[in-house]
Amino acid sequence: MSLLSVDAALQILLEQAQSMPRLDIEELTLDAAENRVLAEPLLAQFAMPPWPNSSMDGYAVRSKEVQAGQVLPISQKIFAGHSPEPLSEGTCARIFTGAPLPAGADAVEMQENTEVQADGSVRFLQAVPAAKFVRPKGQEAMPGDKILPAGIRLGPIELAMAASLGTARVKVRRQLRVAVVSTGDELVELGQPLAAGQIYNSNRTLLLQSLKRLNCAVVDMGILPDDIEQTRQRLAELDHVDLLISSGGVSVGEADFLGQVLREEGELDFWKLALKPGKPFTLGRYQGVPVIGLPGNPASSLVTFLILARPYILTRMGVTDPCAQHFSVPVNFAVPVAGVRREFIRVALVDGCAEKLDKQCSGILRSATQAHGLLELPENTTCAVGDHLRFWPFSSLFN
Amino acid sequence: MSLLSVDAALQILLEQAQSMPRLDIEELTLDAAENRVLAEPLLAQFAMPPWPNSSMDGYAVRSKEVQAGQVLPISQKIFAGHSPEPLSEGTCARIFTGAPLPAGADAVEMQENTEVQADGSVRFLQAVPAAKFVRPKGQEAMPGDKILPAGIRLGPIELAMAASLGTARVKVRRQLRVAVVSTGDELVELGQPLAAGQIYNSNRTLLLQSLKRLNCAVVDMGILPDDIEQTRQRLAELDHVDLLISSGGVSVGEADFLGQVLREEGELDFWKLALKPGKPFTLGRYQGVPVIGLPGNPASSLVTFLILARPYILTRMGVTDPCAQHFSVPVNFAVPVAGVRREFIRVALVDGCAEKLDKQCSGILRSATQAHGLLELPENTTCAVGDHLRFWPFSSLFN
Repeated sequence: MSLLSVDAALQILLEQAQSMPRLDIEELTLDAAENRVLAEPLLAQFAMPPWPNSSMDGYAVRSKEVQAGQVLPISQKIFAGHSPEPLSEGTCARIFTGAPLPAGADAVEMQENTEVQADGSVRFLQAVPAAKFVRPKGQEAMPGDKILPAGIRLGPIELAMAASLGTARVKVRRQLRVAVVSTGDELVELGQPLAAGQIYNSNRTLLLQSLKRLNCAVVDMGILPDDIEQTRQRLAELDHVDLLISSGGVSVGEADFLGQVLREEGELDFWKLALKPGKPFTLGRYQGVPVIGLPGNPASSLVTFLILARPYILTRMGVTDPCAQHFSVPVNFAVPVAGVRREFIRVALVDGCAEKLDKQCSGILRSATQAHGLLELPENTTCAVGDHLRFWPFSSLFN
Repeated sequence: MSLLSVDAALQILLEQAQSMPRLDIEELTLDAAENRVLAEPLLAQFAMPPWPNSSMDGYAVRSKEVQAGQVLPISQKIFAGHSPEPLSEGTCARIFTGAPLPAGADAVEMQENTEVQADGSVRFLQAVPAAKFVRPKGQEAMPGDKILPAGIRLGPIELAMAASLGTARVKVRRQLRVAVVSTGDELVELGQPLAAGQIYNSNRTLLLQSLKRLNCAVVDMGILPDDIEQTRQRLAELDHVDLLISSGGVSVGEADFLGQVLREEGELDFWKLALKPGKPFTLGRYQGVPVIGLPGNPASSLVTFLILARPYILTRMGVTDPCAQHFSVPVNFAVPVAGVRREFIRVALVDGCAEKLDKQCSGILRSATQAHGLLELPENTTCAVGDHLRFWPFSSLFN
């Protein structure tokens, strides 16, 4: 069985995700829409700013009336949030940052370039060109402008932008419902004692927390024992989920009960990926629900989730660009012999340079806790000290 | 009044944060501890793995018994999670990934390098060296190893690591309670109609959402009108918060009511920062509660929050390294004239190269919605096309 490249696997996954029905749209307040996916473009309904306003604390003037040394009386004081009278000719208006320019005025001089006279009038130290310190109406947006495109995730900046447009509610996709199951008799949930041969289940925590970061609605199905009847029964209990993610349990081995049920009652593609860590990967379907089977080793689960499952999930969620942000960084180590699998190496960034952490095997998670992200070494490629490779920060992969 | 450098401002802020009492410690389940700050180092209580185990599906053997062509009968089958009998001499054990090695065995051969004979015994195609495909006991951690240091934030990987150690509850710092207020008569909350001269409050959304990303407990104090009595009263209502963040309202202007109350009844340092956008910045104190006053313009609020308030807040939360991850990237534009203020430019990354977005003024948020992060141009510095500058991804700054 030949190895499937990461690129080919990703293409299959993204095509499958795009072929699924779009998630329903719901309308939420901005606070509730945090980290949801915008379903329709957000348009400006009015000009922003709605009127020309001052970008400084100072004095609004008719620019043609002001030469160096000019003295003008103050005819009104305009605070932000208040509505000014038209500016009387031969006067200036005291004005504060963000306050609307009075009709007639076309410029603002900052207070630092003026002197208040004994009689309260204002002396201008220099001529004031038209438009100085004025934010014109519509500078940020005109009515009908597309401010945010559909298919983006709403973070603090996007939500603040929507707020500034006066948008109290936005149309977003509903949450993707993802069930998570860990398979294997060796797994024990936290709080239970370990019997001989058993280990604590860490993939449950990894997957649940990672899915929460993506704002999925997560269904924790716990541990599935290595038993064909229990596997059948638990799968049959799946209700209203959009995706099932398992870790472990799907392989070509004798203890592959989840795979057996999928082969009998659903569909199953079993891939051997050209990926390290993370060779075994399953894409299946059970009663219409896609199933992603990640390998059970913690580092393999981590890498396959972040590199393959994450973009699939984001695409299902309606995100246009599901690729995490990555950077080109120099490396401080050499890989003299090329491998046939693409490797995602746990590295720390030290002064901008990627340092490989000890113990990269698939069974070990500890090096990931010391890493800042994953360094991608393509298949059939060597690297020398100082070469630049693609670095995927965890802050971006868990975003 | 001379400008205060960003570095000097950050140093003052971090020193103040470090001088405050540490937040109390509470013990939470792993699920509840997501994105909390670990208060005590997490130590391994037992060896991980607790016993040597197989990293492959295959056959456990005594390595010295196996030469190329050797045939051995299978004396037991060991699934993961089950406890094996000692390996009888002259036999092999069918073993699955993660299952404990039986006593006596010192190596595993993967099934692909074997042939099952007609009588069920196994023929080994090659010699098997000792330790092959065996994960030794304690490979990941030994009892007492410090696995996670205090002062880190608990993300999916750290929580999964804690789970693998059998740690059901962790000691973390309590949430920092932050009150957020926006000041100015020009501001209107979402859902209300705009009167002449008014705009919608976007900083509330920006700050609340940003603080939630940091896992602060946020108190929304809404909009503070430009009125000295109401300002006094609302400040007096502050209850059990660790920090007050305001946007707008603190300047040297006549409409500076929050600043006036702080000067009268608390403390106030007003800085003019060598920072663009974001010159005016306040650090104050009211009845023992630190007050950070951000400028009111949305881009200035954004930059001062991310560059100055965020590391202050993380330090208050107990985070050891509050600096966001940044990268060196090439730029595709020139800045021929150096400025006296350090500039944080909203840029998009296109093929790894920073492109400056249109409309960088402090009143405009729209360009930030199109940006991937902030590019730092130091004060008194020019840049040419192809130069490398420090880039701060939003995925890291909002992490």
